[in-house]
Amino acid sequence: MNTDHVAPTRKGRGRPKQFDRDDALDKALEIFWRHGYDATSLNDLVEATGAKAPTLYAEFGNKEGLFRAAAERYIAKFADRGRALLANPKCSVAQATEDFMRDTAAMYTDKNLPSGCFIICTSAALSSSSDEVAKMLRARHHFQENMLTDFLRSRQEAGELPAQTDISTLAKYLTCIQQGMSVQARDGATREELDSIVSTLMGLWPALVRLGVTPSTAGVRVPQRDIA
Amino acid sequence: MNTDHVAPTRKGRGRPKQFDRDDALDKALEIFWRHGYDATSLNDLVEATGAKAPTLYAEFGNKEGLFRAAAERYIAKFADRGRALLANPKCSVAQATEDFMRDTAAMYTDKNLPSGCFIICTSAALSSSSDEVAKMLRARHHFQENMLTDFLRSRQEAGELPAQTDISTLAKYLTCIQQGMSVQARDGATREELDSIVSTLMGLWPALVRLGVTPSTAGVRVPQRDIA
Repeated sequence: MNTDHVAPTRKGRGRPKQFDRDDALDKALEIFWRHGYDATSLNDLVEATGAKAPTLYAEFGNKEGLFRAAAERYIAKFADRGRALLANPKCSVAQATEDFMRDTAAMYTDKNLPSGCFIICTSAALSSSSDEVAKMLRARHHFQENMLTDFLRSRQEAGELPAQTDISTLAKYLTCIQQGMSVQARDGATREELDSIVSTLMGLWPALVRLGVTPSTAGVRVPQRDIA
Repeated sequence: MNTDHVAPTRKGRGRPKQFDRDDALDKALEIFWRHGYDATSLNDLVEATGAKAPTLYAEFGNKEGLFRAAAERYIAKFADRGRALLANPKCSVAQATEDFMRDTAAMYTDKNLPSGCFIICTSAALSSSSDEVAKMLRARHHFQENMLTDFLRSRQEAGELPAQTDISTLAKYLTCIQQGMSVQARDGATREELDSIVSTLMGLWPALVRLGVTPSTAGVRVPQRDIA
């Protein structure tokens, strides 16, 4: 989709105002995030974006189309950010994981945005009458777990994690912590409180990557920086 | 509140039907749980409970009153269940924690109820226009963390956990895992998948209770059953 598309629109009696698709998406994203899909009306979206209803219809089809586009924008933005942190070749697997989790803590408590993860918040808020949106969210729900799995697997292949470490279990566990952090953020937890959870997690890291690794293989030579 | 109150009501053309307050609350709870507070209308509640609107108004005041009563019923039921597992004097602190977490996994994936935790699901779904309900939920949101804190502190006082173990951090970490499990359950995770997270957590237990405990005190004599 062309995200640079700009369509003319009119706001009140003033001069014509250009329709900024990305800006409208950011504003729609925030409204959906704060109130959920079902509780957000087209009127709310018109008010938040400053665009007229026909402009939104022409651009996104309907409320569902606008929601889909907003969700895609959220994932693209935050997946890129996460992937960049995990892909840092200067960091050990533990350090990259910690950077990623602390960035999650910062993101979930960013005062300029609603708290928590957009996908988690809107999924939880979804009425069972919105089946199509639920399906779409479910398909995207695993983007964080998949990102972590790819990262951990590549580090394991590089010999930075014991060969017996169960990557899928580890990725699911880290994702569970992230999801819990989203719930806490939505409930008012501060960045410091989420950081404290990350500190606990990282204190467990040496034990975590060795779960299921039998003593005879636990001593396998892996780069020193990854053991601690 | 008297939960045994029964008021007569009429359903269709048939004979008068007694109004069963607890049954109505269970049905209302399920509807709120599935759809969220905002997306649930009084019509939905009338349909689900089989009661007439005036009966619901007389009994609970309004939708918010009914939601409050349903939330209280949920907490009373599941807090009792959790407390009983944690209070089992035959179990080590690790075993009682594991039983509690596995029961959470079972509860969150109970096929007779909506998935996940009622409080977490409805909090996440709450529109910011429902301030009073949000406040009420926030006040009740910490019941699981408080329950875990009380349990861990009593076991620490009994010498079953190192004196230096930070109980508050430990309770927050366990709560975070529970919250993540609720998100996963809502997203379709099976009981086995949640159990696997609990297994990972319990594999980390010896390291978890020793976080922050310096080597000189880590060797303090605590009952053997609590070390593993």
